[in-house]
Amino acid sequence: MVNNEYIKLGNSPSIIRDLFAYGLEQKKKLGAENVFDYSLGNPSIPAPKEVNEAIKEILDTEDPVKVHGYSSAAGFDEAREAVAADLSKRFGLDVKAKEIFLSCGAAPALISIIKALCIGHESEIMVIAPFFPEYRPFIESNGAKCVIVPPDMKDFGINLEAAEKLVSKKTQGIIVNSPNNPSGAVYSREVLKELADMLKRKSAEFGHPIYIIADEPYRELVYDGVEVPFIPTIYNNTVVCYSYSKSLSLPGERIGYVYVPSFAEDSEDVYYAVAGAARIMGHVCPPTLIQKVIAACADKRPDLRAYDENRRLLYESLCGMGYECVKPEGAFYLFVKAPNGNAEEFSEKAKLEYNLLVVPATGFGCPGYLRLSYCVSKQTIINSLPAFRGMMEKHRSGIIP
Amino acid sequence: MVNNEYIKLGNSPSIIRDLFAYGLEQKKKLGAENVFDYSLGNPSIPAPKEVNEAIKEILDTEDPVKVHGYSSAAGFDEAREAVAADLSKRFGLDVKAKEIFLSCGAAPALISIIKALCIGHESEIMVIAPFFPEYRPFIESNGAKCVIVPPDMKDFGINLEAAEKLVSKKTQGIIVNSPNNPSGAVYSREVLKELADMLKRKSAEFGHPIYIIADEPYRELVYDGVEVPFIPTIYNNTVVCYSYSKSLSLPGERIGYVYVPSFAEDSEDVYYAVAGAARIMGHVCPPTLIQKVIAACADKRPDLRAYDENRRLLYESLCGMGYECVKPEGAFYLFVKAPNGNAEEFSEKAKLEYNLLVVPATGFGCPGYLRLSYCVSKQTIINSLPAFRGMMEKHRSGIIP
Repeated sequence: MVNNEYIKLGNSPSIIRDLFAYGLEQKKKLGAENVFDYSLGNPSIPAPKEVNEAIKEILDTEDPVKVHGYSSAAGFDEAREAVAADLSKRFGLDVKAKEIFLSCGAAPALISIIKALCIGHESEIMVIAPFFPEYRPFIESNGAKCVIVPPDMKDFGINLEAAEKLVSKKTQGIIVNSPNNPSGAVYSREVLKELADMLKRKSAEFGHPIYIIADEPYRELVYDGVEVPFIPTIYNNTVVCYSYSKSLSLPGERIGYVYVPSFAEDSEDVYYAVAGAARIMGHVCPPTLIQKVIAACADKRPDLRAYDENRRLLYESLCGMGYECVKPEGAFYLFVKAPNGNAEEFSEKAKLEYNLLVVPATGFGCPGYLRLSYCVSKQTIINSLPAFRGMMEKHRSGIIP
Repeated sequence: MVNNEYIKLGNSPSIIRDLFAYGLEQKKKLGAENVFDYSLGNPSIPAPKEVNEAIKEILDTEDPVKVHGYSSAAGFDEAREAVAADLSKRFGLDVKAKEIFLSCGAAPALISIIKALCIGHESEIMVIAPFFPEYRPFIESNGAKCVIVPPDMKDFGINLEAAEKLVSKKTQGIIVNSPNNPSGAVYSREVLKELADMLKRKSAEFGHPIYIIADEPYRELVYDGVEVPFIPTIYNNTVVCYSYSKSLSLPGERIGYVYVPSFAEDSEDVYYAVAGAARIMGHVCPPTLIQKVIAACADKRPDLRAYDENRRLLYESLCGMGYECVKPEGAFYLFVKAPNGNAEEFSEKAKLEYNLLVVPATGFGCPGYLRLSYCVSKQTIINSLPAFRGMMEKHRSGIIP
């Protein structure tokens, strides 16, 4: 007499969490320096110093009842204004506080817009492989159908031809995640323009808007000056979901937002529906102390040097050993082809033989690939290189796949 | 092409929020001292000083990456252990950390157990009038039917006769909220035992457990030494939803928990289903800095003197004027009968004539009554007494109802 779907969802730790838990056990046994854990996307750089300074200042100077008191569901005005001002300044738009709905991180932000766009059991939300595996339960358990656009194996952009074929009159939205988890790819302005053109055509054909849901937790994590186009400047019917988890290294504090541009079709209805969906998900307000931190720090950017060093070291080292890697332009993931195409087998052997923990990307919609989260210490990367070399040598000599 | 149900939920600020917003406007015009706002249940005493001390200590001494990093979905072990230890000590149970699932406040805690117990469109969750109005959308928009037990107008306990008639084979749970919002009543051990006996009989009759969902955000807010029985010690099949919003005056920080006792039937399934439901509500983890505060402060109790003073002053003053009030034993609400039985009319006139903001309890399942949240300053109460007197005099003289 208990809901079976939820029992399964609550009792199926992902392969990522399994690997991570295995790593913790092995570290206890063998010492942390002998386990090479690339499983979790947990930021490894601390929050900018302004964050903790802001917390102390708020505690020292503000009314304690208000600091920890309720805000409106959408958040304190000062926090929403800071977000709007930062977006306006960076992207040349006139973003208003009333277009911002603060959320407890990107996950509830995404789910609230998915629910808002779900108008019946036939509603479809598209995702572009490779994709964050939680998209699927977020969509399917909230009443819509998850339609997967197969990966563009050339450069991990968007397989536009396949996407166009899959758009139907039931398509309500498409999630675009760039910089991408797990591939580390950043979609170019050209690709996004083509996607926008296709969606405009299809929206006209079907007589209703098809929204882009821009999932952007990695927006600021890009290297070599690569541009991350702000999708609302390319396609009006875009709703942005953001989290400060990565840019301010605050993943545990659960703060992010939904931005519904007023120029999007039915923007007022969409905004209200986001708020209504959040309400019946138990959203009362985002954590208030951290909202006040955002009011003070929305324009702070992470110091990416550590990630960038890791990225270069791992990418160059693995390419040098003969691994095929997607060129990582953003986020903190390296996407690597399993030498014999069987990522599960590679992951299992690497774990057992070398305590090297890498995630097979089958659940990300891209079998045969491995995701390496390089938000680790540089020393971990250096220590892990013999393991990667060993795996490649054993593969070449036919000992392991 | 946007979900209509959610648009409505997002675009229907409650009468409480409406009154509160009106109050803010009037305060700007007339000065705060001339508006008597009893609308919102927002704690008016600051968090115990240990809370802000703990925050600073954590920031000064712990690894900043870990402080703001992800915890497991159920929360940090140290926080869950502190909650379990506190419950064990107070209620003579051997509560374990693994029975505790930390949540972002009581609202998502409640919704996750409602969803966990919802096994089809016919599932029924009962609520006991008067009740917190959000229960209804929490239940109805998450797939179950909300069955309302009419109020016990004698002493605002539980109308057991009516409850028994309404229990059906589809009943999955009943929400018990004591100390009660809005009546301020505390259910006695005797009443709870009778409820438990009835539920045991009915569970046996229908061949499946009927759970009590104990919604306890006001557990510590009781006066005159009244006992708040801990329901799991009376009825095994109880799931407790708690929030630190009131006891630690942290409503904005969104921290609470679900406690699924291992002695409850199917407790493991229930726990997993709570976790699974939370997952597709976008729960990744509760705010981590505040989890660490709970680890340090779970056993801290509020200083209730200010609320108690307000309670006595308001109760005695209103009774002295001839108002019929429910004797307030807990929470920070006074439940008052509208003199002519029309609470909407009373609320509207009081607002327009006296800037006195009180909430009609129709949405709480108890027409004809008014809810007064006395979490205000004592001065506000003193200043408001002429308004209450004026309303009563005008009622008696027939000028207003």
